[in-house]
Amino acid sequence: MNKRIKQLQEWMKEEAVEAAFIHSPENVYYLTNFLTDPHERLMGLFVFQEKEPFFICPGMETGQAKEAGFQNEIIGYGDHEQPFEKIREAFSSRGMQRISKAAIESELLSYSRVQEFLRITGSPQLVSAEEKMNELRVIKDAGEIAIMEKAAALADYGVEAGVAALKEGITEMDVLAKIEYELKKKGAQAMSFSTMVLFGKKSGQPHGNPGTAKLKKGDFVLFDLGVVVGGYCSDITRTVMFGQPDEKQQHIYQTVLTAELAALEAAKPAVRIGDLDKIARGIIEEAGYGEFFPHRLGHGLGINVHEYPSMAYTNDGLLKEGMTFTIEPGVYVPEVGGVRIEDDVLITPDGARALTAYPKELQIIE
Amino acid sequence: MNKRIKQLQEWMKEEAVEAAFIHSPENVYYLTNFLTDPHERLMGLFVFQEKEPFFICPGMETGQAKEAGFQNEIIGYGDHEQPFEKIREAFSSRGMQRISKAAIESELLSYSRVQEFLRITGSPQLVSAEEKMNELRVIKDAGEIAIMEKAAALADYGVEAGVAALKEGITEMDVLAKIEYELKKKGAQAMSFSTMVLFGKKSGQPHGNPGTAKLKKGDFVLFDLGVVVGGYCSDITRTVMFGQPDEKQQHIYQTVLTAELAALEAAKPAVRIGDLDKIARGIIEEAGYGEFFPHRLGHGLGINVHEYPSMAYTNDGLLKEGMTFTIEPGVYVPEVGGVRIEDDVLITPDGARALTAYPKELQIIE
Repeated sequence: MNKRIKQLQEWMKEEAVEAAFIHSPENVYYLTNFLTDPHERLMGLFVFQEKEPFFICPGMETGQAKEAGFQNEIIGYGDHEQPFEKIREAFSSRGMQRISKAAIESELLSYSRVQEFLRITGSPQLVSAEEKMNELRVIKDAGEIAIMEKAAALADYGVEAGVAALKEGITEMDVLAKIEYELKKKGAQAMSFSTMVLFGKKSGQPHGNPGTAKLKKGDFVLFDLGVVVGGYCSDITRTVMFGQPDEKQQHIYQTVLTAELAALEAAKPAVRIGDLDKIARGIIEEAGYGEFFPHRLGHGLGINVHEYPSMAYTNDGLLKEGMTFTIEPGVYVPEVGGVRIEDDVLITPDGARALTAYPKELQIIE
Repeated sequence: MNKRIKQLQEWMKEEAVEAAFIHSPENVYYLTNFLTDPHERLMGLFVFQEKEPFFICPGMETGQAKEAGFQNEIIGYGDHEQPFEKIREAFSSRGMQRISKAAIESELLSYSRVQEFLRITGSPQLVSAEEKMNELRVIKDAGEIAIMEKAAALADYGVEAGVAALKEGITEMDVLAKIEYELKKKGAQAMSFSTMVLFGKKSGQPHGNPGTAKLKKGDFVLFDLGVVVGGYCSDITRTVMFGQPDEKQQHIYQTVLTAELAALEAAKPAVRIGDLDKIARGIIEEAGYGEFFPHRLGHGLGINVHEYPSMAYTNDGLLKEGMTFTIEPGVYVPEVGGVRIEDDVLITPDGARALTAYPKELQIIE
C-alpha cells in the first residue's frame, strides 16, 4: 500500500469513516499514480480502513492503471455494463454491504452518482473527503516540486516564445499558435488551460478570448499560459509593451509590479494566507486602482491549475513550507487595457521562491 | 426571451417544475449564447415557469454575458462573496423562497452545490434537467450544423497536416505540435480533447498517450483529434501506414474500414441507434477481432465532444434527422497495433452524411 493511501486510512480511522469514494482524476492520480481522464465514464478508488482498496475504471484502461503502479484489485467494466453493479459486488465481497459513514468528494461528485452510491451502501451518512485530500495535497514533496519546477521553466519558455513572435500586424491567435507549438515541441503534454494572448484594450478583460485582433504600437500584450508536465501544472502571466508606453500605462504597470513583489516578499511560513492579498490590494488601492482589481490574489497550484488554498483576503489559513500557489495581482482599466503579473510560488523554510523566472521589469518591444 | 429557454419553460410547466438550475458551461451556452468556463467558480442560469430568468456568474464576466446577448437579469459576485446568498436574494425578490419541485443537472451538479441549493429553496423535490436538455440539444439546427461543418473541415485539415509531417525518426509529440500549430493558425479556438498521435504498437492502446517514440517503417500511425469552433466540437480518427503494410495490418485495416462504412451506410432516420454498433461489431467479430473492439461505436457530438446519444448496442433510441455523432470502430491487437476510423456524422432526411471528409482508403506513406 502506498503512503498516501495509508494517510487517508489513518484519517478514516480517526473519523470513523468506513469507506472513501475518490473519483476525480486529480485525487485518483495523487493516490494511485494513475493519471487519466475518463470523461463521462465512471472511475473510482474505494478505500477502507483495513480491507483491500479497489480501483474501478473503463476496461480498456485497466492495463495502464496497473502499469502506473496500483497494486490492489483493479476492476474494469465495458461500455455496456453498469459500473455501480460491479462496485456493489466489490463492497459485498468485502462484507461492506451496509455502512454507516462514508466520505465522498462532495464538491466534485455529481448528485446522480451520490444517489447510486447511497443505494448500494445502505445510505450511509456522507462526509466530505476534500478537506483531507486538500490537506495532503497542499504540501508538495520533493518529487512534486521537481516536476513543478520543470513545468514552470516551460511556462517561462512559453512567454519567451510569445514575445519573440511579436511584430506589427500579427494576430493574437497567431502568437498563441506559435507559443503552443514551441511548448509541445519541448515536451509539454498539454496546456494547463486555454492560453491567453490579448492585445491593447482586450488586455483589460481579465478573462478575454484571443482572436484576430492585430498588434499595433502602443498595445499592452498580456500572456497567460501554463503547461502540464507529469500531471502537474504551471501558470504564468506576463504583460509587455509593444511600442512605448504612455504615462498611464507606465503607472498601471509599476503599480501591479510593486504589488506583486510586495506579496512575494511577504510570503513565508506562518504568515496568514489572506494577508498576501491584503498587501497587494492595499498597494493597488493606494494607487487609485482598487476597483480595477476584481479578483483574488491567486490560487493553489499543483495537479489542478486551481486548487487549495484560495489566496483570497478572507483566507485565515497559514502558509506552510511546501505550499505552491500563484501570486497574480492585476489592474484592468476599461478602454485603456490591463496588466497582470503572475508567478508560481513555493514556500521555503524561511521565505518563498518564485518557480517562474521570466523577467518582470516592463519590457518594451520596439 | 430566446426560443430555447421558452422550450425549457414549456417542459417545466408540463412537469410542474417551478425552477431550473442550469450550471454546466455547455448547457449555459446552449441557452444563453454565453460561452465560458468559470472553473471552480459557480455560474448558473435560473429559469422559472413565468418569472424572469436570471444568470449569475463571476463579476468580471458579467459584461461578456451581456454582450453574448443574454437579455434578462445578470448578477455578478466577487471572489469574496457567497454566490448562493445572491441566488437566495434573487429567488426571494421573485417570491420563490420556498418551492416544491426543481430541476437540476443531476449528472453534473456536485453534491455540495445541491445541498446549498436545497438550503435556500426549502428542500424541493429534485428532478433531472438533463433528459430535456439532451432532447433539445440532440437535434441540431441549421446554424449549429454550419458551425459543425467548419469544425469538421478543420479536423480534416489537422489530419492532412499530420500526414504531411510524417518522416522517418520524427516523434509523436513533434507531429502533434505541428498539427495543433497549423490548426490554431487556421482559427481553431481550442482542441476539443488532447490530440492523439500514436505510432506502431502504441496505436494498439485505445487511449494511449503520445510521447517521444520515433516513427519507423512498418508503423501504423493513428491520429485522433478535433477542434472547437464557435463552441462546437469535431472529432476525427484516421490511421495510415508508414511504409508497406504486412498482411495482418492490411486485414485489420480493411476490417475496420468495412465496419465503418457499413455503419455509415445503415444510418438514417428511424433506425435503432444500437443497431449501428451491432452492424459494425458483427463485421469485426466475423473477421475474428471481436475481443479487440472494446468500446462502443461512437458518441453524440456537439457542444460537448462526448454528448447524448451514446452509440452503444444497448441504445434502443431511434435516429432522427439533425442528430450528429461519431462512428468510430477500432481494432487494437496487442504487439501488432491498432486501427480506428472515425467520422462525424449528420442524420439527413433520408440517410446520413459524414461531415469529416479526409479519405479513408488505406494511405501508405513511403
